[in-house]
Amino acid sequence: MAALHLHKVTTSGAATVVDDVTAREEPLEIRVEGRSVAVVMRTPGHDEELACGFLVSEGVVKNPRDILEVSQCPSVNNKHGNIVDVLLGGAVVNWDSLTRHVFSASSCGLCGKSSIESVFQQFPSVKGNWQVEPQLIASLPDKLRAAQETFSKTGGLHASGLFDLEGNLIVLREDVGRHNALDKILGYALQRGLLPLDRHILLVSGRVSFEIIQKALAAGIPLLAAISAPSSLAVNFAHEAGQTLVGFLRGETMNVYTHPQRVKMSP
Amino acid sequence: MAALHLHKVTTSGAATVVDDVTAREEPLEIRVEGRSVAVVMRTPGHDEELACGFLVSEGVVKNPRDILEVSQCPSVNNKHGNIVDVLLGGAVVNWDSLTRHVFSASSCGLCGKSSIESVFQQFPSVKGNWQVEPQLIASLPDKLRAAQETFSKTGGLHASGLFDLEGNLIVLREDVGRHNALDKILGYALQRGLLPLDRHILLVSGRVSFEIIQKALAAGIPLLAAISAPSSLAVNFAHEAGQTLVGFLRGETMNVYTHPQRVKMSP
Repeated sequence: MAALHLHKVTTSGAATVVDDVTAREEPLEIRVEGRSVAVVMRTPGHDEELACGFLVSEGVVKNPRDILEVSQCPSVNNKHGNIVDVLLGGAVVNWDSLTRHVFSASSCGLCGKSSIESVFQQFPSVKGNWQVEPQLIASLPDKLRAAQETFSKTGGLHASGLFDLEGNLIVLREDVGRHNALDKILGYALQRGLLPLDRHILLVSGRVSFEIIQKALAAGIPLLAAISAPSSLAVNFAHEAGQTLVGFLRGETMNVYTHPQRVKMSP
Repeated sequence: MAALHLHKVTTSGAATVVDDVTAREEPLEIRVEGRSVAVVMRTPGHDEELACGFLVSEGVVKNPRDILEVSQCPSVNNKHGNIVDVLLGGAVVNWDSLTRHVFSASSCGLCGKSSIESVFQQFPSVKGNWQVEPQLIASLPDKLRAAQETFSKTGGLHASGLFDLEGNLIVLREDVGRHNALDKILGYALQRGLLPLDRHILLVSGRVSFEIIQKALAAGIPLLAAISAPSSLAVNFAHEAGQTLVGFLRGETMNVYTHPQRVKMSP
């Protein structure tokens, strides 16, 4: 976090100068075998996880052994620690799709359906025939918030938390970008050989867009819960992918948008 | 918006099936003179504005005459209306920087400072020596919410509103992506010859990241207010760009992070 001075102003015009902290945001260049594949604006910290998780999301790596080494680039140009290089262990890379983030035009034209299908060519549907109680899901936001150290200070961070089926928090990551917080989780899981995360629940602090649900699928996560709303494409995607999608998880209630069989309900 | 059925579940396990709406999300391919430059996941509507605003943000166009025509691509592959083509009126395009969204490595290495400097090579600092009352700024969120039709229904949309210095709402745009909502505003302004927006205030519903403040600079907006928190890089950027950045705009109070001279305060 970066500390700064700011004016706290009321509508009467009264102003006081106070110290404040903001969530740090810096660029991170992700290189694969020396080749630049992306620059993301992220909150520094867990950068190696972020780079690994990015490659999980892109379908490049699946096992710990797919990555030989991930480290800060030793170049003199990297004095800020904002360049991470990944050495692969024999994984095959489609450099074009990795560096050009433009969907390939499909024969049916560009639409949500074709976007979903292009992802499904890379990742299979999720597994997991288990069921959890709604109380367990409802208890997750408080656990996430309790584990967040910086949120109350800066208010500027998205959080993602990975839980087991007993509701225990396995790992929490925060970032100015919601997709980065999730990529850090995926990188954590990859490095520990936890993938696929088929006996896990993911909780995200914000909204659920196509990109978030796609990353969850890349890690094989069967149940994704969010404090806020999902988009229409996220719902369609979760339905096709076999994922249970829970939104508006607030207090005693929640919306189960897709595959409700994983949430135990009264007959 | 897309309508769907979902299970509303309480922690007791009681479930009711209800109709719901989610914010629509679909891909939009932006083409410039037939060439694909980006695919963004957006809420359909105002697509021509989004394409124009994207090109304002990228520094490609500045005046209405820079764009000859913007329209849905007539190809048979575009049956979903998700491809927009822009014909330029002689503007010079750096195709490399437009299609590769990777920062060029600067001699000092990749850091927030070099990211800021690379943007300043394209856009000058903002102008605008005017001053507004804090009451006026505090009144904007209610005006934005009153103008939002879909937010209360879906809870899944980011909003951006452009106001004049009397606090009148000029245009409101919503989108599943916060950067898209802002790009739509910039496209609206470009098409009407309003750029630069140097006598205007921008209000955004969410957080302020580097990307948002950079787009505001591309349009020359001197005062940007947000309901939530800015990132450290957004604050540094606004400071360098001469922009007044207001955050945590809630009720009677607000934080003024940079260039407080545009907000009238008691001596």
